[in-house]
Amino acid sequence: MPSKLTRIAIAGVGTVGTGVLNLLIKNKILGKFNLDISHIASRRKFNKKKLNLKNTKIFNDAKELTKIDDYEILIELIGGDEGISKEIVFDALRKGKKVITANKALVSKYWKEINKSCKDNNSFVFFEAAVAGGIPIIKVIQEFLLSNKITKIYGILNGTSNFILTNMFIKNENFKEVLKKAQDLGYAEADPSFDIDGVDTAHKLSILASIAFNLNCNFNNISTEGIREIELADLKYSEELGYKIKLLGITQFYSNELLCFVYPCLIHKSELISSVDGVYNGVVVESDFCNKSFLQGEGAGAEPTATSVVSDLISSINVTRSKLIPNSKIKYKNLKINNRYGRYFLRFTTIDKSGVISGITKEFKINNISMKTMLQKDQSPNSRNATIVITTHKCSEKDIKKALKKIDSLKFVVKKTVMIRIESL
Amino acid sequence: MPSKLTRIAIAGVGTVGTGVLNLLIKNKILGKFNLDISHIASRRKFNKKKLNLKNTKIFNDAKELTKIDDYEILIELIGGDEGISKEIVFDALRKGKKVITANKALVSKYWKEINKSCKDNNSFVFFEAAVAGGIPIIKVIQEFLLSNKITKIYGILNGTSNFILTNMFIKNENFKEVLKKAQDLGYAEADPSFDIDGVDTAHKLSILASIAFNLNCNFNNISTEGIREIELADLKYSEELGYKIKLLGITQFYSNELLCFVYPCLIHKSELISSVDGVYNGVVVESDFCNKSFLQGEGAGAEPTATSVVSDLISSINVTRSKLIPNSKIKYKNLKINNRYGRYFLRFTTIDKSGVISGITKEFKINNISMKTMLQKDQSPNSRNATIVITTHKCSEKDIKKALKKIDSLKFVVKKTVMIRIESL
Repeated sequence: MPSKLTRIAIAGVGTVGTGVLNLLIKNKILGKFNLDISHIASRRKFNKKKLNLKNTKIFNDAKELTKIDDYEILIELIGGDEGISKEIVFDALRKGKKVITANKALVSKYWKEINKSCKDNNSFVFFEAAVAGGIPIIKVIQEFLLSNKITKIYGILNGTSNFILTNMFIKNENFKEVLKKAQDLGYAEADPSFDIDGVDTAHKLSILASIAFNLNCNFNNISTEGIREIELADLKYSEELGYKIKLLGITQFYSNELLCFVYPCLIHKSELISSVDGVYNGVVVESDFCNKSFLQGEGAGAEPTATSVVSDLISSINVTRSKLIPNSKIKYKNLKINNRYGRYFLRFTTIDKSGVISGITKEFKINNISMKTMLQKDQSPNSRNATIVITTHKCSEKDIKKALKKIDSLKFVVKKTVMIRIESL
Repeated sequence: MPSKLTRIAIAGVGTVGTGVLNLLIKNKILGKFNLDISHIASRRKFNKKKLNLKNTKIFNDAKELTKIDDYEILIELIGGDEGISKEIVFDALRKGKKVITANKALVSKYWKEINKSCKDNNSFVFFEAAVAGGIPIIKVIQEFLLSNKITKIYGILNGTSNFILTNMFIKNENFKEVLKKAQDLGYAEADPSFDIDGVDTAHKLSILASIAFNLNCNFNNISTEGIREIELADLKYSEELGYKIKLLGITQFYSNELLCFVYPCLIHKSELISSVDGVYNGVVVESDFCNKSFLQGEGAGAEPTATSVVSDLISSINVTRSKLIPNSKIKYKNLKINNRYGRYFLRFTTIDKSGVISGITKEFKINNISMKTMLQKDQSPNSRNATIVITTHKCSEKDIKKALKKIDSLKFVVKKTVMIRIESL
């Protein structure tokens, strides 16, 4: 047991904050590691006595934390990339404190500034809980793979989107129906856009890219697409072809070019990451000496995220060397999505008449696109339309977009063609 | 960078030792962390100059290491639970050094003594490389899940056995053929018994149980069975029923009863761990706040194991608090395999005549065994025998063994009945 008492200030007692308090108290962590919860800032009321926190000072306004100095570790669980959470985190860093946060938006957006403040003030930041709640991916990258050259990371980093995609397929329901259910179950927010539009995944991906490649990954440069447009039909055709559709974050770094993409894509069922279903998250790290490391766990939720926070908390007690290695000297280019070279799944909705296939393939030829598989099924007798599903060999995104633009302008095309990337991992 | 130079003595430059030297040099770890390889003990000759180790003292006999004191960290990569590896490890611990080892047999067998020596001499031992080479399972248990109460761990911990089982099924070959190939490929030793008889898995499992449950798990009390008896037919019938057969190590601790079993078993294909194929290892840890954490990676091989060794090496530089928490105060009972309560896969070979099923089911009834599925296929016309595959509902191992003993003595039974456990994870 450390001989010196360490004082902790906790800001935010929502879902994760409650989980952290429960874990600390239920599993007797405070006594074991000589920790004291000296301050809690919470807008909500909670039962101090029940939690046995008699001597803890309670603030209704987290801003009060900027006025005190009698603590060693700040645990920030308010969230949001601006406002009070930003204020208290930077205040604590300026004061040379250790900061533990689950705030991916803040860490992603202000990565450079947080690094600088840590360096300037000999302060520390820990953010295991910010990426894939119950998966120790930050620890694995920073402490296990730190001798390796990491070449690629990809993962299912958003439980809400994964829950929706999994359940659309299993329950045979469309996007809106499943989103509604996810909201009722508490798996999706009232405003779900951060999750389903890929923003949350991009926040997490930028943090992973920054620590894995020792650079400042700018969140704004990440090409980000979400799952709003995914239709049940796409999931079913993918299944038939041997694939699942997952919202993936992918990052690679080579020859000073950074690839950072977030999009839904087809992943072959033989890939382990395709088995990550429901609210689970999964991450694969590829490195020069350790090949493929795969981790899966619950991506969110009070208890797994609390596990990450408390792991950081215990690590932070004795730490004297910052794990953040800012390296602004690395200059790199961002690879644009139009430079992607890969396979594509295309679903055409056309009038059911002759000449359609030759019309499509003509444009393919012009744009150097080669077809790998084609699937056209008998439609219901009273349908005048045909659905044609084509997967391509590898080609450039620029070419496929050019071809689709042209094809979608042809007379026989009834609806905008669906284009989903196929990821060869 | 740490300001003080840390001197490392490496014992053993075989497969893993070479991997460690390559990783340290290729990825410039020595300079980055101010490390110096002061001594190497190796029976084999190797090119000092090529590795740029001009100032390193080389011993042909590792015993020489017991006569020196001018190093801080010993990396033991010789292996074996007795003899020279044991001698140098305990010598270093007595001298208050930090010891990093990949030696599962030694750590497993002398867990208690190693703990005691660390305590008595303020020395340290690190053994990430001893369990599942490229998977940071020790770190995850000791540093990520340390706030959680771990309830169960199970895993595929031996790459050789997993390679054999996977390839028997894929290549449609029997055990002996695939073992021969594994030996030719270097995936199995000339004497493969440690791997295929489950001993290696049991070594690793005992280490996992000891750190997860804070107790001294005695390797000798682990009920251990290997894969020698698994026939291709069993893999195929399992597939038909929706299962794979894997060599699993399982440990659970509740009400002061320790369950530690190693055996091949049927795992339903919906379980993630069933997708761990070939030389890969996979581990699931179940805990009170983090539910199921799953990790997969290469289980052995020079490079992944070197990653574990070097991760320990860097962690060890600044460590001042031993992660080993020996707790001999915990008294517990070992759960015997006969107390297992679970499902079973049974393959009967009988004469093809009437009365066989009723003869079998009569013994089931007497012993409280209830059948869940039955499969009997048409045999080749010139076969006089019948194969009957039965899976049971949950029952006790004692009862199933009693029933099988009786059934195997019945006249119509041609061969000893195959019994493989079905694991509900």
